[in-house]
Amino acid sequence: MSGYKGYIDTKFKPNKKYLIAEYTFEPSKGISFEKAANHIAGESSIGTWVNVGTLNAKIKKTLRPYIFYVNEKRKTIKVAYHQDLFEEGNMPQILSSIGGNIFGMNSIKTLRLEDISFPEKLLKSFKGPSFGIQGIRKLLGVKKRPLVGTIVKPKVGLNEKEHAKVAYNSWAGGCDVVKDDENLSSMTFNKFKKRIALTLKMRDKAEKETGEKKIYMPNITAETFEMIKRAKYVKSLGGKYIMVDIITMGWAALQTIRDQNFKMVMHAHRAGHAALTRGNQGYSMLTVAKVARLIGVDQLHIGTAHVGKMEGSTLEIQDIERVIEDKSIKENSNRHVLQQDWLNIKPVFAVASGGLHPGSVSRLIERMGTDIIIQAGGGIHWNPRGSKYGAMGMRQAVNAVMLGISLKEYAKTHRELKEALDKFGEYKG
Amino acid sequence: MSGYKGYIDTKFKPNKKYLIAEYTFEPSKGISFEKAANHIAGESSIGTWVNVGTLNAKIKKTLRPYIFYVNEKRKTIKVAYHQDLFEEGNMPQILSSIGGNIFGMNSIKTLRLEDISFPEKLLKSFKGPSFGIQGIRKLLGVKKRPLVGTIVKPKVGLNEKEHAKVAYNSWAGGCDVVKDDENLSSMTFNKFKKRIALTLKMRDKAEKETGEKKIYMPNITAETFEMIKRAKYVKSLGGKYIMVDIITMGWAALQTIRDQNFKMVMHAHRAGHAALTRGNQGYSMLTVAKVARLIGVDQLHIGTAHVGKMEGSTLEIQDIERVIEDKSIKENSNRHVLQQDWLNIKPVFAVASGGLHPGSVSRLIERMGTDIIIQAGGGIHWNPRGSKYGAMGMRQAVNAVMLGISLKEYAKTHRELKEALDKFGEYKG
Repeated sequence: MSGYKGYIDTKFKPNKKYLIAEYTFEPSKGISFEKAANHIAGESSIGTWVNVGTLNAKIKKTLRPYIFYVNEKRKTIKVAYHQDLFEEGNMPQILSSIGGNIFGMNSIKTLRLEDISFPEKLLKSFKGPSFGIQGIRKLLGVKKRPLVGTIVKPKVGLNEKEHAKVAYNSWAGGCDVVKDDENLSSMTFNKFKKRIALTLKMRDKAEKETGEKKIYMPNITAETFEMIKRAKYVKSLGGKYIMVDIITMGWAALQTIRDQNFKMVMHAHRAGHAALTRGNQGYSMLTVAKVARLIGVDQLHIGTAHVGKMEGSTLEIQDIERVIEDKSIKENSNRHVLQQDWLNIKPVFAVASGGLHPGSVSRLIERMGTDIIIQAGGGIHWNPRGSKYGAMGMRQAVNAVMLGISLKEYAKTHRELKEALDKFGEYKG
Repeated sequence: MSGYKGYIDTKFKPNKKYLIAEYTFEPSKGISFEKAANHIAGESSIGTWVNVGTLNAKIKKTLRPYIFYVNEKRKTIKVAYHQDLFEEGNMPQILSSIGGNIFGMNSIKTLRLEDISFPEKLLKSFKGPSFGIQGIRKLLGVKKRPLVGTIVKPKVGLNEKEHAKVAYNSWAGGCDVVKDDENLSSMTFNKFKKRIALTLKMRDKAEKETGEKKIYMPNITAETFEMIKRAKYVKSLGGKYIMVDIITMGWAALQTIRDQNFKMVMHAHRAGHAALTRGNQGYSMLTVAKVARLIGVDQLHIGTAHVGKMEGSTLEIQDIERVIEDKSIKENSNRHVLQQDWLNIKPVFAVASGGLHPGSVSRLIERMGTDIIIQAGGGIHWNPRGSKYGAMGMRQAVNAVMLGISLKEYAKTHRELKEALDKFGEYKG
């Protein structure tokens, strides 16, 4: 039993001074559900494994956690933590508390942090997105339709000039967005500075030729100061976007990059998230997404709702999309979603990426709506006639859906869409 | 099948230009082991889910991965990646590659990155520990015995003055080290600056009174620039140590803190690691430990070899200890350990922490050796007479083992050890 016995109090109603965490877990053999629940609540706040003389009555009274919801059948508890247990504007500290040691305790077999509801005081201590969906749409002059994006492929290997050319072809074919892949930073064969310079030049050319705004998202992921240097360099050349790998760089650096107020859109790649979010041990992707919105990414990869190469169920991804886009989130205990008011925190543009192609688009929009960025790498660069034609196929697919015309019908008069459907078929799953 | 078929080549012998990653995994239903292996190797380097026209022959030749070890029975593969796939000195990029998207692929059910062997070129691009075991022992003037440490408990709740007092009592009783807990940073009831100032003053007092060197490890975990500010403040008051939560702060910020060359010992708490390292999805703790050594932490929590409240098997923790302490690591395929020469990278002091008490010490040293820092929180502050007496019990236990006297025997003439043994018994598991 934990330092302080009996944190369970199902009559407790947390007021606005409490952060709520929802956990699902399985106790270890021989440990009762209630005992393990107490271990979780204690170890994540003021407790340890034995009573200590230094824990006084005042602390017990003011800072004790309340396990106010217990559902053993659904393996779920909700714990209320007083906001004074957390430092404002310090995400690593918040996660070290409620997403820290508890995962390694002997008394639990598996544990998942499903969601966090932040109280107003903590919420206001973070910045949230600087642009958000509306800011990005304004930048691009695209009001309603999903944005069409691509990732330069292969992930790594192209030199700077080849990279810029693939980007140009993709924009020319109809992509709004071209991004670096998550593992492309500054390589021996493709240096960051040269790549950015050449690719932004190609962006300008594509903008002139197409009359559309075009986006290039350079991956600045590195050590913190190096990231800041790279971001400043991007800005100095007229770049309006940066991209970061939020999981492998980590939360402290993400806060730092956001704090710089670069006035550039921040695209968040989530490479590595599934090491943490898949299965019943770790954080849910919903939690990761919520933390990312709070700190302030503008765009976030959230999956493809079963339409692509990455895992993640449709319901789960719809929940995540709501959490990063809506102003107010309703509690849904069946789906491990907590209530949250986002106040002035802007919505994040959801990015669907991973194994998508023109034939995915209809189902994808049906499931994820039009406020998404549809990114296809292989689904664009596969076209033997070149990336331009692959991009045309993708843009045509989006246009078809926006016009309410079936892909098959639209393909009759649009060669590149037809080529893609002939290659991949239409996803109907 | 991945963009480039047949990355499997069991005749391939990686030379010194290759980074090796060892994975264990289970393919999804209907996917063969070989196919999933190819997906892993492709997605972590140059491949995607479909052939792309932009992938040229030169890239295929120079940057293709080699799956050179396949053991389906043990669910294991080893993949060799050319070092040019990675940016020197950029840990987030390395992990976005070999520890990124692959965890979320549909084609695998579970995946674990078991170990990474870094080639010389990449190894040399990181700093490693600034002090290491010998540097720390020199600082303390303790040549052979394990260091005795405590965590101020309760984790949070004490004000600055109470905190400093608990620290003083612990040092006075025989602790070498006193540290903040992982979720204590700068709180409304315990501000960082005031806490550090008061606690370092108590350290000086304890040093004077005991004639021993004493260590205080303030937790500076926060946003990157805030951490740097806090570290500088610690240094300005004569602090010689800082502590960081490496998992919740993340790798980019850890590199940044190391790069500052504060000439203070960096203690690494691993709160949250088990969200990533426990079970068959994610990274192994061995991988986390290796990455932490390479970047350059001086002390690292690695577990208690089944002696405490945290999970982690004895064999696994012994492997981890070897990997962070030894100069050269031998390959052990049965235990998922890869060969590694550490060259000039210093050894990291292993920290055993979590549920320890004086009765744990004998077995703990038997399993983990004397080059460890034994930290007990509850195991010291439990003593009703005060933390000082709890600390005395712990130091007596260490002294007994170093003298080759059984705890039971030594307790006959040492009251505080006897009190602890009466309370907790001796761990014989």
